[in-house]
Amino acid sequence: MPRNAFYAQSGGVTAVINASAAGVIETARKHKKQIGRVYAGRNGIIGALTEDLIDTSKETSAAIRQLRETPGGAFGSARYKLKSIEKNLREYERLVEVFKAHDIGYFFLNGGNDSADTCLKVSQLAEKMGYPLTAVHVPKTVDNDLPITDCCPGFGSVAKYVATSMLEAGFDVESMAKTSTKVFIMEVMGRHAGWITAAMGLAQGKPGTAPHLLLFPEIPFDEEAFLAAVKRNVDQYGYCAVGVSEGLHDRDGKFLAESGLKDAFGHAQLGGVAPRIAELVRGKLNLKHHWAVADYLQRAGRHIASKTDLEQSYAVGKAAVEYAIKGMNSVMPTIVRTSSKPYRWKIGVANLSDVANVEKKMPRDFITEDGFHITQKCRNYLAPLIAGEAPPKFENGLPRYVRLKNAAVKKKTPEFKL
Amino acid sequence: MPRNAFYAQSGGVTAVINASAAGVIETARKHKKQIGRVYAGRNGIIGALTEDLIDTSKETSAAIRQLRETPGGAFGSARYKLKSIEKNLREYERLVEVFKAHDIGYFFLNGGNDSADTCLKVSQLAEKMGYPLTAVHVPKTVDNDLPITDCCPGFGSVAKYVATSMLEAGFDVESMAKTSTKVFIMEVMGRHAGWITAAMGLAQGKPGTAPHLLLFPEIPFDEEAFLAAVKRNVDQYGYCAVGVSEGLHDRDGKFLAESGLKDAFGHAQLGGVAPRIAELVRGKLNLKHHWAVADYLQRAGRHIASKTDLEQSYAVGKAAVEYAIKGMNSVMPTIVRTSSKPYRWKIGVANLSDVANVEKKMPRDFITEDGFHITQKCRNYLAPLIAGEAPPKFENGLPRYVRLKNAAVKKKTPEFKL
Repeated sequence: MPRNAFYAQSGGVTAVINASAAGVIETARKHKKQIGRVYAGRNGIIGALTEDLIDTSKETSAAIRQLRETPGGAFGSARYKLKSIEKNLREYERLVEVFKAHDIGYFFLNGGNDSADTCLKVSQLAEKMGYPLTAVHVPKTVDNDLPITDCCPGFGSVAKYVATSMLEAGFDVESMAKTSTKVFIMEVMGRHAGWITAAMGLAQGKPGTAPHLLLFPEIPFDEEAFLAAVKRNVDQYGYCAVGVSEGLHDRDGKFLAESGLKDAFGHAQLGGVAPRIAELVRGKLNLKHHWAVADYLQRAGRHIASKTDLEQSYAVGKAAVEYAIKGMNSVMPTIVRTSSKPYRWKIGVANLSDVANVEKKMPRDFITEDGFHITQKCRNYLAPLIAGEAPPKFENGLPRYVRLKNAAVKKKTPEFKL
Repeated sequence: MPRNAFYAQSGGVTAVINASAAGVIETARKHKKQIGRVYAGRNGIIGALTEDLIDTSKETSAAIRQLRETPGGAFGSARYKLKSIEKNLREYERLVEVFKAHDIGYFFLNGGNDSADTCLKVSQLAEKMGYPLTAVHVPKTVDNDLPITDCCPGFGSVAKYVATSMLEAGFDVESMAKTSTKVFIMEVMGRHAGWITAAMGLAQGKPGTAPHLLLFPEIPFDEEAFLAAVKRNVDQYGYCAVGVSEGLHDRDGKFLAESGLKDAFGHAQLGGVAPRIAELVRGKLNLKHHWAVADYLQRAGRHIASKTDLEQSYAVGKAAVEYAIKGMNSVMPTIVRTSSKPYRWKIGVANLSDVANVEKKMPRDFITEDGFHITQKCRNYLAPLIAGEAPPKFENGLPRYVRLKNAAVKKKTPEFKL
């Protein structure tokens, strides 16, 4: 007898997380003997806790196919971290209660480090409670900081976005620098790991072009060295384009984005390391500057998604279902790089116990000795991840993205307070 | 005997100003009986003043063709405003001196309001000095604020960029709003005219989706009404996406981007109305927010250029040369909308004396009565301008943009100090 599956999106969304959803749903639909319906959690794991389930079988094949072309999280995602089983047995038991009520035999959580941990814990508790459940984590994070897997679905697209944006802005600044902006600063995501910052480095075709300098969260900010480097680049090339991580901090671990900006009421201003760096450049070097903060645009930019990333995102969703059907529990499909030139990859597998709560930072030898750029080794790693284009269909000049019906499944259990 | 042409890019560049350059150069190459070589000013009009000319005949047809796909200003642009002839006869006479030395018979300036004025003045002075010169202005500005022409080359592409970005970020925020960001703010260009802000409005497919609110430079900022509107949208739809012009100001004309943010040294922080609005939302409504400042990314985003805009940009360059050959002096090609549904356009002509220094703002009936969105009339105007895609070729995952040789023409006149 087929049992039903539960799928939830977790944490910050990406341009291609819905491709993983499509991979899960389309593959489940091909295995009707093993899997009945795929229920998605409305707003992620919260949907399971509150028994707010979406019946994906109500969606047409065309709509599910269109998920590959739609950014954001089609069923709603959530930043909601379950506490440890010891501290919050109640929530884990509630999950099993809901799963039982809807005969959920397969549990797919699509997220990053935190959700890998949640997925593992849910699997452990189900086992302890004697409830038969196969739990598979579907990797996703723009931060690219999951261990074991060669790269993380979602990263390649944000990498392509920031590299393209830096390339284009570089052409702009270069052409105006004689009489206008001489320093351009672009801030990107990645609070703890500099992978996205590094990806901007791919834009530099030849020395002297953008980006001239990268500021990584892995390298404590050295104001003096930075200002000297800016000046050197402006003197030599006429302009200086800087890519900076939102997580840039000083030697004491203090985030630059939090260091001292106050509004009229005396409140500390939140966020924005780019304006902070810009102010430094103006104050200390008296150079005209502009700055950009890409924010959600970078991780929602489906129109410039990486085809490689899209394919990998779909593939991990598909593999998750195939693994689950085989009875592989507490695992996560991974991307395995089998060759760099030409780039080739396949899907592998990792045990969740080896993945949960481990954070992969940039290796030091991916960053140049002076700390301001990426090495050739880093370029070799990053370049294939942004390869290929997979633009969505356009309608009336705009990408045609899908909104699902997201029909609710009838509730069967008593109300649960979060 | 053919005479040479001078072409210069002026003011802020766009994603498609180089398409106008391609239109000028390719059309000139087809009229060798009338036009000898096209010399481009290195860094705009400054290249003419300093006799720093680029010989575009050294560029291959393939390179010139690739200009259609390359953002920024291929020859360098400049923010350099010539003063009135009375106040600065010296510079105008210098221009004629350089033109005479290189037998320049055609003068093409590719820019916005200011450069239309410069173009007119150069034409007037040449006539006064008895130097035969045909001056044609090639319109370009992301601000869309030139009069007479239905729209401005360069605007459609930035409009498509900001509408796409708002659409995508909207999908992201919508899916996370339950547990995370509830208010998203995106800042765009357009200090005096709200055309770019308005273009974000195109992203709203159905009521309740992004953007919920637009803040125009034409509408003085009403803090109380704005905060009430944000609250209303968050209550009703779960989130609120706001598009804001960098030029937003209060009733006293004071820019919000300048109102009160100070750094640790007590310096006023420059720029950034989005973080200012975000701080307001956090302080007064206690809602979690995120903000983006697109800055140069929006006007350099060639990868998401509007095909309509690209074609119009090329067409005004082409028409400028054809007008010049016909002896039409002190004119500017315009875009004439001959039909809205289906959208049809042709190239028209305007006298520079009717264009120079006139700024076209958004009509009040393009903005809804409450001041927070665009009307159907505005949508009808804007929609065709973002229609069609014209992606560049990609190589190794990034747009393949061209850098020209930009070979210098031998100098023939004494040095001139700016």
